[in-house]
Amino acid sequence: MNANIQNVPITLGDRSYSIGIGTGLIEDPQTYAAAPKAATALVVTNTTVAPLYAERLIRALSARYPSVHTVVLPDGEGHKTWQTLNLIFDALLGHGCDRKTVLYALGGGVVGDMTGFAAASYMRGVPFVQVPTTLLAQVDSSVGGKTGINHPLGKNMIGAFYQPQLVVCDLDTLKTLPAGELSAGLAEVIKYGPIADPAFLDWIEVNMDALMARDPVALAYAVKRCCEIKAWVVGQDERESGLRAILNFGHTFGHAIEAGLGYGEWLHGEAVGCGMVMAARLSQRLGLVDEAFVQRLALLTARAGLPVKAPVLDAVDNAGRYLALMRVDKKAEAGEIRFVVIDGVGKAALRGAPDALVREVIDACCA
Amino acid sequence: MNANIQNVPITLGDRSYSIGIGTGLIEDPQTYAAAPKAATALVVTNTTVAPLYAERLIRALSARYPSVHTVVLPDGEGHKTWQTLNLIFDALLGHGCDRKTVLYALGGGVVGDMTGFAAASYMRGVPFVQVPTTLLAQVDSSVGGKTGINHPLGKNMIGAFYQPQLVVCDLDTLKTLPAGELSAGLAEVIKYGPIADPAFLDWIEVNMDALMARDPVALAYAVKRCCEIKAWVVGQDERESGLRAILNFGHTFGHAIEAGLGYGEWLHGEAVGCGMVMAARLSQRLGLVDEAFVQRLALLTARAGLPVKAPVLDAVDNAGRYLALMRVDKKAEAGEIRFVVIDGVGKAALRGAPDALVREVIDACCA
Repeated sequence: MNANIQNVPITLGDRSYSIGIGTGLIEDPQTYAAAPKAATALVVTNTTVAPLYAERLIRALSARYPSVHTVVLPDGEGHKTWQTLNLIFDALLGHGCDRKTVLYALGGGVVGDMTGFAAASYMRGVPFVQVPTTLLAQVDSSVGGKTGINHPLGKNMIGAFYQPQLVVCDLDTLKTLPAGELSAGLAEVIKYGPIADPAFLDWIEVNMDALMARDPVALAYAVKRCCEIKAWVVGQDERESGLRAILNFGHTFGHAIEAGLGYGEWLHGEAVGCGMVMAARLSQRLGLVDEAFVQRLALLTARAGLPVKAPVLDAVDNAGRYLALMRVDKKAEAGEIRFVVIDGVGKAALRGAPDALVREVIDACCA
Repeated sequence: MNANIQNVPITLGDRSYSIGIGTGLIEDPQTYAAAPKAATALVVTNTTVAPLYAERLIRALSARYPSVHTVVLPDGEGHKTWQTLNLIFDALLGHGCDRKTVLYALGGGVVGDMTGFAAASYMRGVPFVQVPTTLLAQVDSSVGGKTGINHPLGKNMIGAFYQPQLVVCDLDTLKTLPAGELSAGLAEVIKYGPIADPAFLDWIEVNMDALMARDPVALAYAVKRCCEIKAWVVGQDERESGLRAILNFGHTFGHAIEAGLGYGEWLHGEAVGCGMVMAARLSQRLGLVDEAFVQRLALLTARAGLPVKAPVLDAVDNAGRYLALMRVDKKAEAGEIRFVVIDGVGKAALRGAPDALVREVIDACCA
């Protein structure tokens, strides 16, 4: 047993699993003791992560699987497409992988989402393990079972709810993370404060400098606390029929930014960071929080190295473009956009808002 | 309530639903009373079925959904691909369909499989209704929740287990079915005898002429009995971890025929018909059934207008080609092909067989 590991249990009936958080995990064969045995494992990774960690993972897995194959995908949100997904299916079929083959997702959120959807769909479902190597993936994609790909007309439009057998968050991988990726992950860390845990928001404010300096103790606590909060939310609403939607705080505006600029232009976390400030502003205009909260969240977001000024998506009708993009959000119903708003720090709610008010918020945030 | 309707309940916990079997169902708005309400429905059909039934279905649905859209796919197994599946996603997103939109699959097995997979994957899951218009789809695809598409390296390799909200088997649609399609459906009807119900096998032998003549009473009984048997099997093993695999009797050889000749060359049911005779021959060589059973099944298959002589897939090493194709079957494990064999009429089993014996069977069936 590795002494450097903490476990967060995710309780979802017969789809329960455990998240291991610690250092030195990837290269330790013991890390994978809870993963299913099989004749074959397929490691799915990308061109950026492969040279850093693939060999260590493959060596550790070789103790468990007679045959370990690898497929290396192009890196980036712009590649979260059918075409890239098919590279995984090509590898699975090319290597004669069967129903018991275990997929290992080694990389960030894009690799995790695509590998998870491939696992959900290959032969109608094979087991998979997440080995997230970005902060964003560790705090966000590790829990919840959301998998999928983008469609030219909308983000994450095609996918499945599908749970991994195990998640391995090796904090060592955060040492090599580019600064922008660290900030993007911190956007999702910050998110958990306003929606669920005022004390955690306080903690983040106190520890933001340590997090930005990649202090391992601070990062370990942040990852663990985010996973716990998300597990608590998902445990009550696995398939997002209600409560779970609060995890999308900042994402409705954020998705519009990503789609409007073209996927990959801003990092997902950057768009979410800016989107949270926009959603906070909307909450304030709806009378749910005060101006001080908006300022507090904007300051914290900026300290995390994230953009707080929204981009102009259309020179002629900018707010109209935002609205059009948000209407295809998955939370929208019959064309009405449903926003995650903050109804007092630590409490989120889902509600609509008049177009005119949303336009004002967009104009204010882009100015 | 429609007097011409019989219902077969499918009991799968919170995924339970009902199959309605009868005449005059498509155009009757009452038929859809159990389907979920929503702002939008999308009818997915193909170029062959659309001119025959789409208008009637759309008219009936217009009473229930303010907005009913249609997408017409190219017809045929050769189109059961990513590319065609994407036409459904394009339509869903193009029409701004949300998470409550109900998909209606109007057509045969290919339309049903693709619509089901699109429903499973669109926004990670929207409801869908099956309106199968071929005998094969009515007796086979209506129950079990198997959805998916083909990959160039294997049939049905990418998909999901996903249950419909309702299945509507309108027997009137069988009147317009081409003769080859009727025969293809009868292959799946025959299948249920040897694997599960000796009395039903006797009934099919007595009623084969009536079935071939499209006698509505005989067809209604056949559809109902097949759905009942399949429901009994699937109810015990929804995700095919064991028993359910017996439903693939004839399919291992059949899939090799389809893949080897190129999808669409033989109808799926034709390949299954011939595949059943091959699997019966294998069962006999394994000492599980006698020669008389093989002859009996071959005769019945031939009476249904189905091929009983297997095609040559490779001029140089025909049996080797069959074996290679069967090794990528989803039932294969670590390269060992697992065949559904008949272990006495009415009882199926899953087992491996020595390559040499399988080669003899293939040679005998192709001769």
